[in-house]
Amino acid sequence: MSAWRIALAQVNPTVGALAENAELLLRAAQAAAARGAQLVAFPELALAGYPPEDLVFKPHFLSDAAAELRRLAAALPPALLVIVGYPEADDGKIFNAAAVLHGGAILATYRKMLLPNYGVFDEQRLFTPGAKPLVLEAAGVRIGLHICEDSWVLHGAPCRRLRGAGLDLLLNVSASPYHHRKLALREGVLRQMGQHLRAPVAYCNLVGGQDELVFDGASLLLAADGRELARARQFEEDLLLIEVTPAGGAKPELNPDQVDVVQWPGPAAAGGDAWPAPRLEPVLDATAEVYAALKLGLRDYVEKNRFREVVIALSGGIDSALVATLAVDALGAARVHGVTMPSRFSSQDTFSDALLLAQNLGIECRTLAIEKLHQTYLEELAVCWSGRAPDATEENLQARIRGNVVMALSNKFGWLVLTTGNKSELATGYCTLYGDMAGGFAVIKDVPKLLVFELARWRNRQGGGAAIPPSTVERPPTAELRANQKDCDSLPPYDVLDPILERYVERDWPAEKIIAEGCAPACTRLDPRGG
Amino acid sequence: MSAWRIALAQVNPTVGALAENAELLLRAAQAAAARGAQLVAFPELALAGYPPEDLVFKPHFLSDAAAELRRLAAALPPALLVIVGYPEADDGKIFNAAAVLHGGAILATYRKMLLPNYGVFDEQRLFTPGAKPLVLEAAGVRIGLHICEDSWVLHGAPCRRLRGAGLDLLLNVSASPYHHRKLALREGVLRQMGQHLRAPVAYCNLVGGQDELVFDGASLLLAADGRELARARQFEEDLLLIEVTPAGGAKPELNPDQVDVVQWPGPAAAGGDAWPAPRLEPVLDATAEVYAALKLGLRDYVEKNRFREVVIALSGGIDSALVATLAVDALGAARVHGVTMPSRFSSQDTFSDALLLAQNLGIECRTLAIEKLHQTYLEELAVCWSGRAPDATEENLQARIRGNVVMALSNKFGWLVLTTGNKSELATGYCTLYGDMAGGFAVIKDVPKLLVFELARWRNRQGGGAAIPPSTVERPPTAELRANQKDCDSLPPYDVLDPILERYVERDWPAEKIIAEGCAPACTRLDPRGG
Repeated sequence: MSAWRIALAQVNPTVGALAENAELLLRAAQAAAARGAQLVAFPELALAGYPPEDLVFKPHFLSDAAAELRRLAAALPPALLVIVGYPEADDGKIFNAAAVLHGGAILATYRKMLLPNYGVFDEQRLFTPGAKPLVLEAAGVRIGLHICEDSWVLHGAPCRRLRGAGLDLLLNVSASPYHHRKLALREGVLRQMGQHLRAPVAYCNLVGGQDELVFDGASLLLAADGRELARARQFEEDLLLIEVTPAGGAKPELNPDQVDVVQWPGPAAAGGDAWPAPRLEPVLDATAEVYAALKLGLRDYVEKNRFREVVIALSGGIDSALVATLAVDALGAARVHGVTMPSRFSSQDTFSDALLLAQNLGIECRTLAIEKLHQTYLEELAVCWSGRAPDATEENLQARIRGNVVMALSNKFGWLVLTTGNKSELATGYCTLYGDMAGGFAVIKDVPKLLVFELARWRNRQGGGAAIPPSTVERPPTAELRANQKDCDSLPPYDVLDPILERYVERDWPAEKIIAEGCAPACTRLDPRGG
Repeated sequence: MSAWRIALAQVNPTVGALAENAELLLRAAQAAAARGAQLVAFPELALAGYPPEDLVFKPHFLSDAAAELRRLAAALPPALLVIVGYPEADDGKIFNAAAVLHGGAILATYRKMLLPNYGVFDEQRLFTPGAKPLVLEAAGVRIGLHICEDSWVLHGAPCRRLRGAGLDLLLNVSASPYHHRKLALREGVLRQMGQHLRAPVAYCNLVGGQDELVFDGASLLLAADGRELARARQFEEDLLLIEVTPAGGAKPELNPDQVDVVQWPGPAAAGGDAWPAPRLEPVLDATAEVYAALKLGLRDYVEKNRFREVVIALSGGIDSALVATLAVDALGAARVHGVTMPSRFSSQDTFSDALLLAQNLGIECRTLAIEKLHQTYLEELAVCWSGRAPDATEENLQARIRGNVVMALSNKFGWLVLTTGNKSELATGYCTLYGDMAGGFAVIKDVPKLLVFELARWRNRQGGGAAIPPSTVERPPTAELRANQKDCDSLPPYDVLDPILERYVERDWPAEKIIAEGCAPACTRLDPRGG
């Protein structure tokens, strides 16, 4: 009866890239084995990537995944026990499964029992739930296996069936996406589950950006009493090395109607004393965490979609400044291009700020004035307007000309266009469809304007001096689509607007309740810019 | 013991418009009562509209729906029994329910037991399943109640629990969207269910366009032996008047653990002999059915989103010709505007065809040549290209200029832009993002090119002469974005491409299987236009 050495392999696979992902898992498992690991756990659906969505309805995707799993099993060090999430097809059903690989073969498979079907999750659309948890048993050590949601329902079946099972460890493999304050929420849930099962909890989470989602990693080991023993890095691939020690004493007999039990000879003797003490990475502060999430989401969208370079329209305002800074931090200055597109309504101040930002960031930046194009449109369209007064049409036209220019640069050079709209303006419609909304990835679409300011100030306080010109941070926001325009001509001040949006969009409050809380009714009568 | 007179009220509500929908239901119920109906059935979720999606997660939407239901119950003729679908909130759960209204109150509620969660359906995300079917019993007549999916699973719980219940009628209230060949599929399913339960089946379906979906109506009465006794119109609101006659003989006792039973005094004596014989509307042929579905989807998108007029870019090609014809058939010529936007690559033939089409349809049409705008872009952007050869960039630019022009018309006049891309070009990427894809509603996005031709020819054979110029139908398809361009320069011929797309997109076949069936491998190496 000895301790097991376990590596929680917090990897960053790509949805659908089965062969690439298998290669990634193989390399991580080999590295863990070289360090002395006896068991390597990968995140939920690590072989397929998460979320696989309707890909799992393609029969050839499922058969390809099964073939890659067999190839991986054969290629792994045979003494290693490896847990790999993959989509399992069986008898016309599809399961969110974790295969237990050993000795070149699939020793057992656990099927996720609780399928989340809310928020970003659609698993009941994709998968059939499993019936029983799995217990790995060898050499006096019992490890119970859960997949993500299984551990989130305290008295759900996956929990009830492991209660009293004499576990030495609950191992949860997850693909749990980041949102604001998620880390504390998640640790609280796992702590409660571990205390309920009277077992330590090892948690292996996915990391990486995948389309709209960002997985934050932060894999974890909690003691049975809830103490944090080890934590992997947030927002980066990592290998967290932990140890599970048998509690000793007699184990209760397990009822095969309640749990599947996999017994196996157990790991080979651990190789010496090189196994490190548990590593507890510090947690990023709230602003740094959001910045890291945005940076990772941006980087992985670019990389996983195989773009080499990006282009950003720089207005001299804070949104495009933050996006450009994130892009440089994520990709390096050499892969980022700026373009300024001044019109008659652009001020010298914003134009200078755009150039200064590019200079601070060290990115290539070109200027393409849109004045002549705008004038040509106005002349050509005049015959259609038959004397109507200028309105949002002329404003939107400028944004759409800029959209055309950045898309032309994208087509000609293969650059991905990053759009710069924040959540406050997107939620109120203060933006132009097919104009500033035109592009491939909306970096800060889920960031309210007040948080944009906070992130910019935070980034300017980091090493290397202020990348974002102070005047960009201090200037009252303006779209510069007509003379002397300010956002607050059409919208409430952002310190009024953002709390309203949070209540309406995130909490589903009705207008009456928001007003009752103290916002003036006028605040809720928004005057979107149109488009 | 006498027959019940039932009206299947095939109505067209709008998602979220609770007060408007309640008014619509009230008027339909009053009209049915005036004809002598004793029971009026409305479709699934008729009060909320279908699909309500995440609206049901807003607590105030649910409480507003409950309030509207109570107001409706109080306003209805008190002797009438009325079945109304609505989202029911109870103890933190949400049900897809049908309320039974009578005497100014809610007599009972049935909760949908089988929640579809595939294809266009996400009901397991939204609703909790009900536990028991409902039987309405009065004056010797037994009617079992199902909601949509409940009748689609032959040995599912809603079916098993009504088997042997001695029903005189199974009443299914549905929101079943149209797709190609859906009518025969649906009638087959209902016929099987009725034969299994040994009861006639009355089926009340929703009608109308709602965003991406079109509900086709075609409410139905099948005899217990499967014969079609009555059918309402397809793609139109309708009131189908039917009668249920008690089978006579002793009824089996019902087990309240298996079904909920609502007993009530039964309908007042039927008012005379004015009740009509069952009406069996003929079924549209396959092409007419698709045309009617597209027309209804277009009309309702415009109306439900409160647009008054639409604008369409007319290229002289068959896609825009079909869309314009559909728009005129749906909205009338006075509400439809055309705009032709020739460039240096537009031929005199296509330009003439566009004008002739507008003339045939009697729609206002303006011409706005994009030559000067295109030239200005090329000159302004030349500095960026640094001598690179022309490629898809210059082609996409023209499409994007046209996109800007139609969006400017939309902004200035409030017209909805109808886009004209067909399924074949959208599936292969043979279109321009933010160019010809820019607009508010993509009328034929789910129509493959071969079907576009078939629909155009079919429409030209209808009364009033050929609206679409014969030369538009006969000309080989071209995007006219470079000199002498033809679709078949970049794509396989459509009679090769469309069958490939059907297998790949609709049937999830892998490339190998499509090739093995006889398509040359070259067919699958598509060369999308980019963008």
